[in-house]
Amino acid sequence: MRKVNVGILIFDMVELLDFAGPFEVFSRTRLTPGIEARRSEISAPLCVFTVSKSDKPITATGGLRIVPHFCFEAAPPIELLVIPGGVGTRTLLAERATLDWIRATAAQTKRVSSICTGSLLLARAGLLNGKRATTHWGALDLLQQISDSLQASIHVERSARVVDDGVITSAGISAGIDMAFYVVEQMFGKEIADETAHYMEYYRP
Amino acid sequence: MRKVNVGILIFDMVELLDFAGPFEVFSRTRLTPGIEARRSEISAPLCVFTVSKSDKPITATGGLRIVPHFCFEAAPPIELLVIPGGVGTRTLLAERATLDWIRATAAQTKRVSSICTGSLLLARAGLLNGKRATTHWGALDLLQQISDSLQASIHVERSARVVDDGVITSAGISAGIDMAFYVVEQMFGKEIADETAHYMEYYRP
Repeated sequence: MRKVNVGILIFDMVELLDFAGPFEVFSRTRLTPGIEARRSEISAPLCVFTVSKSDKPITATGGLRIVPHFCFEAAPPIELLVIPGGVGTRTLLAERATLDWIRATAAQTKRVSSICTGSLLLARAGLLNGKRATTHWGALDLLQQISDSLQASIHVERSARVVDDGVITSAGISAGIDMAFYVVEQMFGKEIADETAHYMEYYRP
Repeated sequence: MRKVNVGILIFDMVELLDFAGPFEVFSRTRLTPGIEARRSEISAPLCVFTVSKSDKPITATGGLRIVPHFCFEAAPPIELLVIPGGVGTRTLLAERATLDWIRATAAQTKRVSSICTGSLLLARAGLLNGKRATTHWGALDLLQQISDSLQASIHVERSARVVDDGVITSAGISAGIDMAFYVVEQMFGKEIADETAHYMEYYRP
């Protein structure tokens, strides 16, 4: 089975659950139900990997260190791009290499998604112009400010958990799990999404 | 403020969300509410770190590689021990070094907890003898078998999400997030737990 490449951006001070939640959902999705199917990659429809600016381990919030699978230059083609948030996004808002990579990758990918303040980076990269989008409740005003400063006309949704307006954005941290299930359902149907949630003992709100 | 040390065991093929969920909850708990408090460790009551048999990066399910904070020999005293699950537990059930470390650490810690099939390791280490306990729905029979083979008289709870019988065990994967909030509530009160859930935009079931 040809697998769909899911590339998750990671960086220093990425919020841990922002990316670990979707990583879990996407990497544990199986087209064959049950526990046994999770012991191998045979019926896994997605190939999930992390991408970072360099090959060096990054430090997530709380101090967990993660070894990225690929640096920007070495990443395989990405069909689903996932941009998590975290306090580290504030530095990246002014970092050209990362914004350029997001923009270039988004231009050749099928789906772009974000969790939490990851949407600030999408906004800054010009990918939310004229679109409805959301972010962590603590960053809604900042998303609006970025929109105003770039004259991007982003319609900031203040109470949605997942917003799909071509680009898929989600609310804070744990909302990324729901965003991931939303995408799995969109790609493979409700039965596959629900079975994966059952495997994870996760109650979708 | 003196911080309480939370040690999370990690190993090859640990289920990613099993440990990343509690890591997020414990490391993002603050005694001062709000977003700003999460920008520093000042009001963080817990110091969270990972412990592994060796210093080398481990590979979680789905292929994420994590650099442990400490190997067994170098770990600081642990006051809350967290044992996640994952298919990697099956190897560890016969691995003396890890079982000995769990047993020795549990003997000098205040709280012992597990997520998912982490309870199989606690059972095998003799820490669930005569206690009520749970695990992932796919491993309930295996927990009963381990209990029978060791004559450990574990009362396997088949529908609980979190079981506290001196040792705290929880159901599969995402149930670890609820277990972590349960412990935070026990240690610091419902207001602190709820505020942390609000920060994480997590709806406690």
